[in-house]
Amino acid sequence: MKPILFEGQSARLIDQTRLPLEEVWREIRSGPEAAEAIRSMRIRGAPAIGITAAYGLALSALHSKQDSLEAVRAELAEVSAELAATRPTAINLFWAIRRMNAAAEEATSLAELRERLIREARTIAAEDEAMCRAMGRHGAELVPAGARILTHCNAGALATGDYGTALGVIRAAHEQGKSIHVWVDETRPFLQGARLTAWELAHEGIPATLLCDSAAGHLMQQGQVDLVVVGSDRITSRGDVANKIGTYTLAVLCRQHDIPFYVAAPGSTIDLAIESGRDIPIEQRDSREVTHLSGQPVAASGVQVFNPAFDVTPAELVTAIITEQGVHRPPFSPILSQVASQP
Amino acid sequence: MKPILFEGQSARLIDQTRLPLEEVWREIRSGPEAAEAIRSMRIRGAPAIGITAAYGLALSALHSKQDSLEAVRAELAEVSAELAATRPTAINLFWAIRRMNAAAEEATSLAELRERLIREARTIAAEDEAMCRAMGRHGAELVPAGARILTHCNAGALATGDYGTALGVIRAAHEQGKSIHVWVDETRPFLQGARLTAWELAHEGIPATLLCDSAAGHLMQQGQVDLVVVGSDRITSRGDVANKIGTYTLAVLCRQHDIPFYVAAPGSTIDLAIESGRDIPIEQRDSREVTHLSGQPVAASGVQVFNPAFDVTPAELVTAIITEQGVHRPPFSPILSQVASQP
Repeated sequence: MKPILFEGQSARLIDQTRLPLEEVWREIRSGPEAAEAIRSMRIRGAPAIGITAAYGLALSALHSKQDSLEAVRAELAEVSAELAATRPTAINLFWAIRRMNAAAEEATSLAELRERLIREARTIAAEDEAMCRAMGRHGAELVPAGARILTHCNAGALATGDYGTALGVIRAAHEQGKSIHVWVDETRPFLQGARLTAWELAHEGIPATLLCDSAAGHLMQQGQVDLVVVGSDRITSRGDVANKIGTYTLAVLCRQHDIPFYVAAPGSTIDLAIESGRDIPIEQRDSREVTHLSGQPVAASGVQVFNPAFDVTPAELVTAIITEQGVHRPPFSPILSQVASQP
Repeated sequence: MKPILFEGQSARLIDQTRLPLEEVWREIRSGPEAAEAIRSMRIRGAPAIGITAAYGLALSALHSKQDSLEAVRAELAEVSAELAATRPTAINLFWAIRRMNAAAEEATSLAELRERLIREARTIAAEDEAMCRAMGRHGAELVPAGARILTHCNAGALATGDYGTALGVIRAAHEQGKSIHVWVDETRPFLQGARLTAWELAHEGIPATLLCDSAAGHLMQQGQVDLVVVGSDRITSRGDVANKIGTYTLAVLCRQHDIPFYVAAPGSTIDLAIESGRDIPIEQRDSREVTHLSGQPVAASGVQVFNPAFDVTPAELVTAIITEQGVHRPPFSPILSQVASQP
């Protein structure tokens, strides 16, 4: 299922803050509307954020009231800055914005600019889906028949153009008839696992069991996990992996229990400008995500909160990185420089 | 603050499912009412469960309609079985029930039985508070000035007769003017950290910050945690520690980051009948604790859930066990056999 549908004059996004209780689709007609959807996490997931930003820019160009090429480019620069300020960690956002602006630079007329931007956004979305399917094929080779696979957050179709990164691997293994079972971390505080991953897996008929994040260690200790696969929001040139908060803990647990820890992400997730994961900006989110549940306060009022949205797993704890080009094992540096998407 | 107050003809419990939003006290007048309070987790925490069971038995004896010593003892045996069936993991419950039944055995008249049981329950509560204060004194020696201490679940006054086990250590260090800061794991699914520990620390004016359980690894990686201290629901003869789900993961993270991992628990938590933690029964709780938040469904409907309430940390990952008798370092077996409370 595609979480973003382009419809000529607008795009529709499935509101991921309402899933799984309701399937509500929201229309966006501009970059600022795309920025709002990203900020509020109606759309989330590194590749999906990039695609949404791309459509947002295309729609801003399409509906711009400016009538010169230069004026529209200037407007796009402003909208690009607004989109870039929404969420700091996922690199795919900045990559998509750069790619759209490069396309805008090549246009020699306003009509051509509009046409190029719409084409580029569609291409980004289509390429992402193709990359996910390729990742799925490559990654499925790492999944033994009967495997019990643990995943964290949602790296599924909802987080991408379609099919998913980590869930793409799971989906492909399931399609190959491997009788897998998926352990789904609920993924506090935003509960992408409980709300989105469990829903996607149910849709696909893939057997799954939900658990609290803190139960994963116990599960591994009991010998119930054969491998872990997660997505990523940014991978540095040496293979350090930013992903949803809690991922690092899973990697440490995998090392303790000698369980393979895999990361599935497209080339657009690789940031060759950063070597060490320590240099990845980590988004801090609103304390209400922790202190309130379903809108109700649960914590002692006025308590201080630490709510980082991501953490960084050092390359040393990563068994392999799965990209559209294959399964890459350490040392990651040489291969990642070839796999990284430009610009 | 004492979570259980004995008032002659009844006992009052602060309803911990309503904290921190409301301070609602519930009256219990019998063992079955105590059992209901334990099952529903209105009262929780291994020592507090033991105390509640003890008062429940005393109140059942007090208000029994039976008029012979033997008939009341038979009634107490039934109530003991009901209490023992409430929650399987915390050993203090069984210890308190045994101790109350031993007191009942010694009585030679009904009046004496009633008086003995009330005295024994009061003694269990008072001893628990004294043990907590002793643990606090011993444990505080392990806390350097300025320490940043992470704790999980609630091992505070609310979980004991008063003062707390792990929080007793924290409280004592604070009372000594050590300028500590406490990191509070929210502790899914029941949120004892967010609801109870954050509330207790705010009451005491101890600086604290709440975080999702999955953020603890990131925090340690950033060098922000100097030590971890938790309570326990059962400690085996070799020093394996059952405690709230997520504790084992913290112990693994501590090992990875070379952070001391301390367990604070009274002698009544030690179970000499079990050597390996693998033999501790782990309670599985209702899936709704995971699938619903504040009564609202959040997960895909019909999803399977794995919801263990506890996990087991092997002795090898425990830096020291703090009891009322002191700070015990490995090997734990010799000292635990001396520290364990009888019967």
